[in-house]
Amino acid sequence: MSDCVFCKIAAKEIPSEMIYEDRDVFVFLDLNPVNYGHILIIPKKHFKTMLETPEDILGKVFSTSKKFMKTIQKALDADFVALTVVGTDVPHFHVHVIPRYFNDGLAGFWPTKKYEPGQMKKFGDKIRKGVKK
Amino acid sequence: MSDCVFCKIAAKEIPSEMIYEDRDVFVFLDLNPVNYGHILIIPKKHFKTMLETPEDILGKVFSTSKKFMKTIQKALDADFVALTVVGTDVPHFHVHVIPRYFNDGLAGFWPTKKYEPGQMKKFGDKIRKGVKK
Repeated sequence: MSDCVFCKIAAKEIPSEMIYEDRDVFVFLDLNPVNYGHILIIPKKHFKTMLETPEDILGKVFSTSKKFMKTIQKALDADFVALTVVGTDVPHFHVHVIPRYFNDGLAGFWPTKKYEPGQMKKFGDKIRKGVKK
Repeated sequence: MSDCVFCKIAAKEIPSEMIYEDRDVFVFLDLNPVNYGHILIIPKKHFKTMLETPEDILGKVFSTSKKFMKTIQKALDADFVALTVVGTDVPHFHVHVIPRYFNDGLAGFWPTKKYEPGQMKKFGDKIRKGVKK
């Protein structure tokens, strides 16, 4: 897509700290890392979100993500590696892979809620009903 | 694995608010949701982390995740849907799919850092060197 910054990065029209590319995917360092070495894995072709991305490309993006989770964990001595698809921000599907350290001071996750009695089934019903549509 | 809580959930030895199952994957509500309707997608077979999960099962877990991202977005009127693999907590590979709302008060992401001049290339080199090993 002509006005998409990630399309331009994948086409090397905008410079990036590139890590890897093949026919389908492009891997580069996030300019604003959560921890240093935080990478983005994107399909070269433009898909707005994960939901629009076809299965074969989706598989390629996540198997590449897995490969680089391993690489980053070793190369950067990370204690663990997080993977996130935010669903907002740049509208070109991308996976964040972030090296994490037990002492990095970042929250492991968002705060969580509790269900009231019966409420869990209600939400389960809504989702199950959605599957059948 | 006999002492794994997610294996027991997938085998229905521990009750859960189940959403979906097939031969390979099991989908259920997280007991401690970030937002109500937060689900977990797990392979039925035990793999400690994403890194140990074979490609075919990995593909199945993420294509199922995508399917339920769509379902949840519609069924729960979510503004967007986040997907996360934390890399710690329960040692049975699982994907979190979380309905998100613009007014849910949750951080979109972790705080980010900046690279010093030259530092980005240094991290790029470390990771690229790791790929070749």
